[in-house]
Amino acid sequence: MGEAMLWDLARTKGPEAAARAALNRIEAWADPALFIHRVPVEAVMAEARRLALEGPMGRPLWGVPYVVKDNIDVAGMPTTAACPGYAYTPKEDAPCLARLRAAGAMLLGKVNLDQFATGLVGVRSPYGTPRNALAPDCVPGGSSSGSASAVAAGIAGFSLGTDTAGSGRVPAGFQNIVGLKPSLGLVPTRGVVPACRSIDTVSVFAMTAAQAGEVLAVMAGPDAADPYSRAAPASWRATGGAVPPVLRVAVPEEAELVLDTPDDAALFRAALARLESLGAVLERVSIAPFLALARRLYDGAWVAERTAALREVVEHRADALHPVTRTILEGGLSRRTVDAFDDFHAQAGARLLARAIFARFDLLAVPTAPGLPTLEAVAAEPIAVNSRNGTYTNFVNLLDLSAVAVPAGFRGDGRPAGITLIAPAFAEALLCAVGGAVHHAAGLRLGASDEATPAPPPGAALAPDESALFCIGAHMSGLPLNGQVTSLGGRFLRRDRTRPEYRLHALGNRPGMVRAVGGAAIEGEVWALPTAAIGPLLAGVPAPLGFGTVALEAGPCLGFLAEASGVEGAPDITAHGGWRAWLAAQS
Amino acid sequence: MGEAMLWDLARTKGPEAAARAALNRIEAWADPALFIHRVPVEAVMAEARRLALEGPMGRPLWGVPYVVKDNIDVAGMPTTAACPGYAYTPKEDAPCLARLRAAGAMLLGKVNLDQFATGLVGVRSPYGTPRNALAPDCVPGGSSSGSASAVAAGIAGFSLGTDTAGSGRVPAGFQNIVGLKPSLGLVPTRGVVPACRSIDTVSVFAMTAAQAGEVLAVMAGPDAADPYSRAAPASWRATGGAVPPVLRVAVPEEAELVLDTPDDAALFRAALARLESLGAVLERVSIAPFLALARRLYDGAWVAERTAALREVVEHRADALHPVTRTILEGGLSRRTVDAFDDFHAQAGARLLARAIFARFDLLAVPTAPGLPTLEAVAAEPIAVNSRNGTYTNFVNLLDLSAVAVPAGFRGDGRPAGITLIAPAFAEALLCAVGGAVHHAAGLRLGASDEATPAPPPGAALAPDESALFCIGAHMSGLPLNGQVTSLGGRFLRRDRTRPEYRLHALGNRPGMVRAVGGAAIEGEVWALPTAAIGPLLAGVPAPLGFGTVALEAGPCLGFLAEASGVEGAPDITAHGGWRAWLAAQS
Repeated sequence: MGEAMLWDLARTKGPEAAARAALNRIEAWADPALFIHRVPVEAVMAEARRLALEGPMGRPLWGVPYVVKDNIDVAGMPTTAACPGYAYTPKEDAPCLARLRAAGAMLLGKVNLDQFATGLVGVRSPYGTPRNALAPDCVPGGSSSGSASAVAAGIAGFSLGTDTAGSGRVPAGFQNIVGLKPSLGLVPTRGVVPACRSIDTVSVFAMTAAQAGEVLAVMAGPDAADPYSRAAPASWRATGGAVPPVLRVAVPEEAELVLDTPDDAALFRAALARLESLGAVLERVSIAPFLALARRLYDGAWVAERTAALREVVEHRADALHPVTRTILEGGLSRRTVDAFDDFHAQAGARLLARAIFARFDLLAVPTAPGLPTLEAVAAEPIAVNSRNGTYTNFVNLLDLSAVAVPAGFRGDGRPAGITLIAPAFAEALLCAVGGAVHHAAGLRLGASDEATPAPPPGAALAPDESALFCIGAHMSGLPLNGQVTSLGGRFLRRDRTRPEYRLHALGNRPGMVRAVGGAAIEGEVWALPTAAIGPLLAGVPAPLGFGTVALEAGPCLGFLAEASGVEGAPDITAHGGWRAWLAAQS
Repeated sequence: MGEAMLWDLARTKGPEAAARAALNRIEAWADPALFIHRVPVEAVMAEARRLALEGPMGRPLWGVPYVVKDNIDVAGMPTTAACPGYAYTPKEDAPCLARLRAAGAMLLGKVNLDQFATGLVGVRSPYGTPRNALAPDCVPGGSSSGSASAVAAGIAGFSLGTDTAGSGRVPAGFQNIVGLKPSLGLVPTRGVVPACRSIDTVSVFAMTAAQAGEVLAVMAGPDAADPYSRAAPASWRATGGAVPPVLRVAVPEEAELVLDTPDDAALFRAALARLESLGAVLERVSIAPFLALARRLYDGAWVAERTAALREVVEHRADALHPVTRTILEGGLSRRTVDAFDDFHAQAGARLLARAIFARFDLLAVPTAPGLPTLEAVAAEPIAVNSRNGTYTNFVNLLDLSAVAVPAGFRGDGRPAGITLIAPAFAEALLCAVGGAVHHAAGLRLGASDEATPAPPPGAALAPDESALFCIGAHMSGLPLNGQVTSLGGRFLRRDRTRPEYRLHALGNRPGMVRAVGGAAIEGEVWALPTAAIGPLLAGVPAPLGFGTVALEAGPCLGFLAEASGVEGAPDITAHGGWRAWLAAQS
């Protein structure tokens, strides 16, 4: 087995085998800067034995070894945030961690980070710099440096990071793994050392997007004591998505792309081409307002939010801080609230633009970072190079978006690069589906292992609380009313067609289908909707349309039907075989 | 006709009669401090003639005279915000005003306010203090002083105010009228002089809650250029709510109630008793955390938000400001962002508590204000008395809640008092329904008029999360499948019948109805179902039946329909007029 396959090992040989493999790998890797605090070997093995004895009991992460960034509370272990002078020992697990425990995952320890999660490099820590598992002369990426290195090195089946400005995506891009940054509030941040509390998230690193989604599924859900946590829509799922047949992807204007080398540009182009080969339609859009907002993150109100969270240290024990972190945090002390509202209003304006963009597009695709800098380059210009790393990540949390970073290949000099897909809040299932597919299409090895990237799992079958709905018109993917379906939690299942017993009519901008003698097979799409969403969707369907039972080749299915009296006199477009073909013939 | 009845006048005698009545009333009222800018008499009459000539054309506010607070843009008229040195003349109407114009309302002019909407008294204006229409020795309330006085005095059928901290509720309570403060972002605030942009709202004053709801219905909806505007849920309505049979109402703990006199306390108790007589179940809760948050509004970050919006004036032309306003706004200049985040995190914590309270209760009932202060009392202590006015209003916008203030009666000394109902965002239909019922039950005259408070219009009796379903067969009451409806939460609403355009067929033990030439009116029952239950019910409906839009005498309604192809050859039982009559004929 490849060391990347700790998940498989847990499932096929059990927790003890997975724990032994992980512990051996830690020894072989021998990076003194990786862990800040380890669970003792005997304790890991005792936990593995306990889990093995109990059996899986339906626990989705049974026996999978993992590590957490050392700004997340684990009961009884110090939380340092890479600042020994700040450390405290919590009595309670952070809720996200408690949920992982309950799901059967096995903690190996707490790993290094840029101090107080401030940085995108991974070198701002008194505990040293974790090794980049793919390019040892380069930075590991930050702030979740150890979390990314542990997964890329095959030490952990997954890891938790945090992501306020890119800390869950940049290190994934720098180490050839997947980084999933969930929607704000989806995973509680209680028990996490705050950076910018209002936009902090707990993120997941894994070898594949599907694994990241499985971990997220376990951690998601509000926490009654966390004011920044929030409930996802009832229909939300982390996994089980499929790549829709029509996928509208926005890409930044060429002139707005900042990339280090021609190789970085070529890798991004190649990733876009893979998206197109999956059926995506790409269109260039300007993201200049997002980039402008991003510049306010470290030059505006939000730096004061960081300072506010650590005020006692900054004001009274500043010599406990890393020099670069100290400079940044002290800068927050003098800012004026009257200026802060300029930032907040700019944020509201950029959110408005984001709403407009995501009304037209399912995803925004960007490079994960302009390029991977060397340790030397960061040492020479610690702040400028760090800022550049956040070009494509800084704006995402400010705009309440979700994102996944997946590998995109290697430059000629061997340094890895990534592509990041960005979507509105609560679109994680779509991100994992598309991210998994584009990752698989790249044909890369996983992390630093020799394992090939597996194909993503097929979209899930209908859940017990879902209904299949056969759409034949403007509710299909890429068409004007598809947003009604997706915003109600709809998931694309498959293309399908009716039995040859229906006639299709054009009722202005919508089709009307009736069962009739002399009918034909009509093309459409089957979408899975939460059954509770059928009523709300139907509420927006005008006469003479309604929902009834449509005879598909595969069997009966709820779907759009028209009243026969309502299509009288309307053009009969049955010969086109479907609405999409008819639309194409009109243009 | 009583002068309060400008709406009736517009509807029965037309826009010209309503305009003349309003203009006469302005002259008779003779308050030089009421208007800051009037639409010339000839222009009002010309507009009335134009509207009369065009006819109503379905416009819901056709010919109703109104006024707006002078911090809302009207094309071609100066916007002063009660600060002559700040005034500008906009080229465009604010979107909320443009929507009123399109709905046929007639603007009379722009009225006085506490300068920059900063204040809850109505005396902070260089244009003088509008007269309190009910208690002339008392303040009119603010900041929407003129807006409330104009409605209470019977000059305007309704008026627009703004409400950031209570400016749309306190003056309503002080002048025996209704003040509806909509959810954040429901009415665009573009074209409104900002107070605290992130929590500003445009509010409505009217004699009754039903009228306020009608005005809101016209103005609601997002504006593409307003980043703080937002779309309501698809099921949202401003009007048409009914008092639910079970209504859970939270009331502050007795110890947390601040009331000026025993009379104020007695009036609040009496209002609560009226709520109980409507079927409400009251329970005391602590609102201490809300009151604590409210104290931060003028003592924390949000005062700097006010300063930021008017920064140019505050920094460079402060002598243009009212002395009290100047003191407040200058106080915002020195605040530090690092402190602001304490306020924002406290706000997030209080929102969490509000979520918990409104999970258990439909409404929170509070006094509108502790009591109505005299002009003299406010002159003696301009800031302290002002702050006290906001006791029950300041926290509402910070918590993203909606509210309506309705009259609650008069103290022994003749001063009016009010009760305010508070609900989560987008609960305006419920607020107007309950507010209208409790107002009517108080048996008061309207504003300063002699007109009695009318009974609220009967509700659509449909809750916002319910859908009406027209049942024609075995799902009707007493028939075999009625249990499916009731077990999904269905409630019987009424018997009804279709327009005479349908034919009914017997499909074994169920009817199938199709729209057809030569049809008749078919009897059935309208049931209210949770919208989320429509899908589950539909899942049990076999082909050729489905749900579509049925044309009832009362209007379109979701209901059972059959595919025309599916009833071919089935007995036509249209002549029976309905399934129940057909069943009777079989036995």
